[in-house]
Amino acid sequence: MISRYPVPEFATLPDDIKARMLAVQEKAGFIPNVFVTLAHRPDEFRAFFAYHDAVMLRDSVLTKAEREMIVVATSGVNHCLYCVVAHGAILRIYAKNPLIADQVAVDPQKADLTPRQKAMLAFAVKLARTPEAVSEADRDALRPHGFSEEDIWDIGAITAFFALSNRMAHLIEMRPNDEFYRMGRG
Amino acid sequence: MISRYPVPEFATLPDDIKARMLAVQEKAGFIPNVFVTLAHRPDEFRAFFAYHDAVMLRDSVLTKAEREMIVVATSGVNHCLYCVVAHGAILRIYAKNPLIADQVAVDPQKADLTPRQKAMLAFAVKLARTPEAVSEADRDALRPHGFSEEDIWDIGAITAFFALSNRMAHLIEMRPNDEFYRMGRG
Amino acid sequence: MISRYPVPEFATLPDDIKARMLAVQEKAGFIPNVFVTLAHRPDEFRAFFAYHDAVMLRDSVLTKAEREMIVVATSGVNHCLYCVVAHGAILRIYAKNPLIADQVAVDPQKADLTPRQKAMLAFAVKLARTPEAVSEADRDALRPHGFSEEDIWDIGAITAFFALSNRMAHLIEMRPNDEFYRMGRG
Amino acid sequence: MISRYPVPEFATLPDDIKARMLAVQEKAGFIPNVFVTLAHRPDEFRAFFAYHDAVMLRDSVLTKAEREMIVVATSGVNHCLYCVVAHGAILRIYAKNPLIADQVAVDPQKADLTPRQKAMLAFAVKLARTPEAVSEADRDALRPHGFSEEDIWDIGAITAFFALSNRMAHLIEMRPNDEFYRMGRG
Amino acid sequence: MISRYPVPEFATLPDDIKARMLAVQEKAGFIPNVFVTLAHRPDEFRAFFAYHDAVMLRDSVLTKAEREMIVVATSGVNHCLYCVVAHGAILRIYAKNPLIADQVAVDPQKADLTPRQKAMLAFAVKLARTPEAVSEADRDALRPHGFSEEDIWDIGAITAFFALSNRMAHLIEMRPNDEFYRMGRG
Amino acid sequence: MISRYPVPEFATLPDDIKARMLAVQEKAGFIPNVFVTLAHRPDEFRAFFAYHDAVMLRDSVLTKAEREMIVVATSGVNHCLYCVVAHGAILRIYAKNPLIADQVAVDPQKADLTPRQKAMLAFAVKLARTPEAVSEADRDALRPHGFSEEDIWDIGAITAFFALSNRMAHLIEMRPNDEFYRMGRG
Repeated sequence: MISRYPVPEFATLPDDIKARMLAVQEKAGFIPNVFVTLAHRPDEFRAFFAYHDAVMLRDSVLTKAEREMIVVATSGVNHCLYCVVAHGAILRIYAKNPLIADQVAVDPQKADLTPRQKAMLAFAVKLARTPEAVSEADRDALRPHGFSEEDIWDIGAITAFFALSNRMAHLIEMRPNDEFYRMGRG
Repeated sequence: MISRYPVPEFATLPDDIKARMLAVQEKAGFIPNVFVTLAHRPDEFRAFFAYHDAVMLRDSVLTKAEREMIVVATSGVNHCLYCVVAHGAILRIYAKNPLIADQVAVDPQKADLTPRQKAMLAFAVKLARTPEAVSEADRDALRPHGFSEEDIWDIGAITAFFALSNRMAHLIEMRPNDEFYRMGRG
Repeated sequence: MISRYPVPEFATLPDDIKARMLAVQEKAGFIPNVFVTLAHRPDEFRAFFAYHDAVMLRDSVLTKAEREMIVVATSGVNHCLYCVVAHGAILRIYAKNPLIADQVAVDPQKADLTPRQKAMLAFAVKLARTPEAVSEADRDALRPHGFSEEDIWDIGAITAFFALSNRMAHLIEMRPNDEFYRMGRG
Repeated sequence: MISRYPVPEFATLPDDIKARMLAVQEKAGFIPNVFVTLAHRPDEFRAFFAYHDAVMLRDSVLTKAEREMIVVATSGVNHCLYCVVAHGAILRIYAKNPLIADQVAVDPQKADLTPRQKAMLAFAVKLARTPEAVSEADRDALRPHGFSEEDIWDIGAITAFFALSNRMAHLIEMRPNDEFYRMGRG
Repeated sequence: MISRYPVPEFATLPDDIKARMLAVQEKAGFIPNVFVTLAHRPDEFRAFFAYHDAVMLRDSVLTKAEREMIVVATSGVNHCLYCVVAHGAILRIYAKNPLIADQVAVDPQKADLTPRQKAMLAFAVKLARTPEAVSEADRDALRPHGFSEEDIWDIGAITAFFALSNRMAHLIEMRPNDEFYRMGRG
Repeated sequence: MISRYPVPEFATLPDDIKARMLAVQEKAGFIPNVFVTLAHRPDEFRAFFAYHDAVMLRDSVLTKAEREMIVVATSGVNHCLYCVVAHGAILRIYAKNPLIADQVAVDPQKADLTPRQKAMLAFAVKLARTPEAVSEADRDALRPHGFSEEDIWDIGAITAFFALSNRMAHLIEMRPNDEFYRMGRG
């Protein structure tokens, strides 16, 4: 089972959802289960991926690998298997580093990262687990690394979106595709 | 200040965002700050409200007041002022109960609620703060109250969306409109 | 129900307790439930209000509103409905600010307060929830705001008394009077 | 130093406070530091001991030793040295058991206690640390041991008073008299 | 760097430590860094591996894979990169399952395990993080799965040893060999 | 009962374990229960005491009393009765201070210790409870007190070993000998 909930037949899906799935299949070679399982509710599916694209694909000083680091680190502290495994695979590929995902998922502050990346992940993890505790001092810790206020929004918005995503994955017991576990391990 | 970030001039906004703001203004008499502040990033704005509508407006066994209870209770444990105050106002109005929002924000298990509503909020609060700890036993506690698996998705999806929303509000230090504090207090 | 425990008939109460109730009724227009419910045990009632007066009425650099801020902030983190609602009302009145109580109850560090008041509440909240963690560094953070050692006792003593008060309210499930919810909202 | 704050000269104290100190000195052979240090503020001193007597000396199904167990167990989880050491001594004496205080301070659920006493301390420790989490289930766990609603008030009121007391001791860094450490050790 | 501390030259090591390293190298094809880094202190090295063998190699109803599950699950909650990566590799090999280690490290209760294995890991994780909270009820939850008191010792002793091991790895910032990340991934 | 598990007859024990017990009996006048209870599993017994000796008896800048302080402080936060009581006794004797053990067990930062000892215990307690949170800043806090990297290993290794020991004591419900409670109290 890849979800506690019914998984719709592909043929029965609305055209826009079919198209999105075919596009990812062409790129990845398979359809990640997040598409298949969330398609149970088309409106939530559409909003979910619109939000995903808005925060993950926008122009940003954060590299693609850095965005995935935020996903993996915050999903790690949220114990979200789907996001750790699926985005861990993507992180390995973007970073061209077969070790980085496990490091970031387990203990980001001891991973093979730059001080700037560690600062970024410290902020993201705090916002992920205790959003009420984020203070001016936490923002101040980002600034020496060159992060602007807009960059902090980028970091925070990815964290916020995966706070949602991790909870949906726990809620429906979303299972990562077997393919993800090995991808990018060199 | 209603946000740490720049607030766009209304005239400069894309038409769809203008339209959404005018619609809410007509209904509420003012534009809630969540619209004004998130408009700084139109793509995130659109995804945010699409998601909001998908989980808050869909057909559900949850009444409108019950959905707002989930928002207020989970925003309470996340110490999110914007959502407690703004959705507290909406909850008072939908529930036609001037006391209920403060009760739910501070201590839902002692609020003037039905056992079914208390069970719903216990599940939501757990998913909000420790999503990894949600277990079959937590779902089992909902079933005697008549909640189906689909109803549990409804509860969980609202919780997940406001996990995102609370973090965005903390991130940008979103300030509730003064109007909300008094609305629905009888 | 305003308490899990029996609430004594006014006529059966000792004279000093009757007098205290009549005095507050004259001032407030109603008798707050903390008086009515604690009167179930006259000796504890007397000690409770003697302690209350000793810390809340004594001469202090803390204004009346600031003392209530401490009550509301620490009762907020203790999820004590009675104290948040009743003292929130008093805070709104003393501060002549209809918004302040909800802000302080939910997230004091983002409330419309002075840096001095925020420092005071950070100390109080830490003493309220993890008294063992209060260190010299926490006292040092108060000093630049002009707080003397005696002022710190004032802050701490109010916090300590409401640690007791919050636990009594949870224990007996003390219910705030309906009147408090709307008081001072302008 | 027995307190961060000035300790008044005995001769300068109000008569009622002097009398209280002399009475305890006659009984114990020395004046416990809680009397000496709190005398810095006579009104708080009076309220403190009035409250103490109201909860610790009242008629109750709880034996004197059992009341001290509540003090020691809750002060243990609050890491309050004064109360663990001073009330530990009193507990050893009342229980005529030289081992019991260290057991209760460190790990009450594995102490040489009856199941009824362990249930009582589980309730007290929960109210002490997370008062908001106390639920009907926690009360239900006390009932098979014969605790009535009034007995639960007794347990809770002692816990609440020492929530105050522990915070005052941390606040002023109250030091236990050396005598207490050895008392009742057989 | 594989440790914050000096790593001894192989040639300078005592013979028994050399022999142990050569034995593991013959079996694994490389020397895991736990051997190389702990060799900085030969007496601790010897005690460490004697303890390891006593709990990991002894006759037990726990299979080799189940023992490694305990290591991976408890190291996961302790965020110990070395143990998650190195013992994750061993777990994949023993269990002949390329997916199991990531599942157990991130969220054991949703891993592809038997109910008996999930019960075992729930006990281990609780002992790992909050040893003081382990109660008779936690042991009772193991018994329907056929675990005897001796089996519970086995589970607990592995957990206890890796409580030590995780702390040593954090202390010296022990780095897993690159080889481990890919082993057993099929 | 001194353990949940069978306690072997002395006569049935292997000679090396007998010898170790007789040696400690000669020195202490009785056999501490940790020897008697762990003898149920001779291999674990041998590894346990080999590790104990490796960290507690090695040459170090830490005095014998300071090593015991680490044991007592970390066992205090782990609520381990055996280690608090048994090592508390040893600490009193080594430090020639009848008060120190209770102070260190309950609240090390307010104990009669040097700033250097308090810094040492702050590091140990953090490693004991949240090993993943130990950072460079925590090491930096030790350096002004003259602790070298090797000294930090000493502190950490003792902490790590008693993380194991505390869990074993909780697991088997190891009971301290009555003698320990009074030893060294002057």
